[in-house]
Amino acid sequence: MSAQIASIAELRQRLDTPRRNGAHIGLVPTMGALHQGHGRLIERAREACDTVLVSIFVNPLQFDRQDDLDRYPRALADDMALCDSLGADLVFVPSVAEMYPVKPRCTVEVAELGDHLCGRYRPGHFRGVATVVLKLFQIVQPCTAYFGEKDAQQLAIVRRLVADLNVPVAICGVETVREPDGLAMSSRNRRLDADERARAPVLYAALSEARAAIESGVTSATAVQERARKRIPDDDRLRLEYLEAVDAETMQPVEQIHTPVVVAGALWVGQTRLIDNVRCTPPVQP
Amino acid sequence: MSAQIASIAELRQRLDTPRRNGAHIGLVPTMGALHQGHGRLIERAREACDTVLVSIFVNPLQFDRQDDLDRYPRALADDMALCDSLGADLVFVPSVAEMYPVKPRCTVEVAELGDHLCGRYRPGHFRGVATVVLKLFQIVQPCTAYFGEKDAQQLAIVRRLVADLNVPVAICGVETVREPDGLAMSSRNRRLDADERARAPVLYAALSEARAAIESGVTSATAVQERARKRIPDDDRLRLEYLEAVDAETMQPVEQIHTPVVVAGALWVGQTRLIDNVRCTPPVQP
Repeated sequence: MSAQIASIAELRQRLDTPRRNGAHIGLVPTMGALHQGHGRLIERAREACDTVLVSIFVNPLQFDRQDDLDRYPRALADDMALCDSLGADLVFVPSVAEMYPVKPRCTVEVAELGDHLCGRYRPGHFRGVATVVLKLFQIVQPCTAYFGEKDAQQLAIVRRLVADLNVPVAICGVETVREPDGLAMSSRNRRLDADERARAPVLYAALSEARAAIESGVTSATAVQERARKRIPDDDRLRLEYLEAVDAETMQPVEQIHTPVVVAGALWVGQTRLIDNVRCTPPVQP
Repeated sequence: MSAQIASIAELRQRLDTPRRNGAHIGLVPTMGALHQGHGRLIERAREACDTVLVSIFVNPLQFDRQDDLDRYPRALADDMALCDSLGADLVFVPSVAEMYPVKPRCTVEVAELGDHLCGRYRPGHFRGVATVVLKLFQIVQPCTAYFGEKDAQQLAIVRRLVADLNVPVAICGVETVREPDGLAMSSRNRRLDADERARAPVLYAALSEARAAIESGVTSATAVQERARKRIPDDDRLRLEYLEAVDAETMQPVEQIHTPVVVAGALWVGQTRLIDNVRCTPPVQP
């Protein structure tokens, strides 16, 4: 049975013995409403680590909209069952008061990497993400932490965070898990009605079009983006927020594609905002 | 002999064995040009810890003026001799390239506590301080870190940093060491010529005047500050930057003094900027 723990002090105490004994501690930070994508993260941690800890915390600091925070799906009983079935040792489920007993005055500011894509449309989002990830790293002190590649910008920022601040945690990115029709697994998919669900795979279709263009030798980011955007039908239940090619490491927009890029998109499907991305490597120049 | 270490990797390796053996590791972060105030910090660490590490790093990120960074005193041979005489085990002296191999994109933003006093006159200073302190905490992972009370605002921010970000380090504030005439020990005192040195104690005299006023029952911060400022003579080699009563924990200005405050001041003596502060507790109300 996975042990459910709410208190930071108790968690640290539980980790004390494995840590003294040199256990490799793996952390899978989540916001709950777990799906097969999270499942893959836990499996990867279980393969590599002696002690696997899943954290479930819907972090208010990373929500720019109160309604989005209120509507974020919660499913703790199902989450515990999944953690249990995948052999997680500990599940850390702190309250907001446990994580933020007072309003934090010291937070992590993210320059450049957070300026585009989601950061442009969700002000303060990546400050909230970087701050809570750093807090979890300090609470758990894991050897390795696992993050999904679906949140490519978040992953790039977490990698930069540990490098810039010398945090002694190895970061492991794990491939996106998709439904058979290509839709990336996401907690937010639960919000889609049947009609919206049927339309949602178009985001991955558009990103795949971009990848095909890049792999066939198109180097103009504008041309790639235009070709991809054409795959999003004119439909008043769909609104493309962004679809952009950025440098795979710095998350800065590129004009010409000669090195690996991430093409990332955010699509509103009804009232639900979905994100996805593909990593693309241009062909070797002749 | 204290071992001098320049590389993060080597430092971590050296700390590995004591850490596994459960040693209490103490960190004394400094910018070098060590004086008796630093000596007191090292002594306090030596009394309480199994392994004592002194770091010496003039952190460019916390200097708002290039000329101040360039002119900051350096005295590594003397510093090593002092560390050695006080029994420090390790002295970490990284290069700027070791600490900042690339420009950091993730830094620690300090709200409120850094808005007044030094923060108001040195933009970005406390972001630089908080960022480098957090980096040192991640590199060394000490049990306890020692900071001088002379830098009261810095100490308050470091306490807030570890609380807000759950950094597992105990913070120990150590009382200010003074010359016989009251001048607080500071690396910057080395820059004073004989004439400036003779005038410098006036800052502590003014702060002591403020403390006497508060302890005698004056509750108006304005009245206290005016009385203290009158102790600074009209002299074109002296320029008072600020002298202010702030809440001892939040570092926010107060109007009425009914709880413990810090009265802090910054005085330019010629081309040298000195800071000092006194902690004051008002008398119990009748």
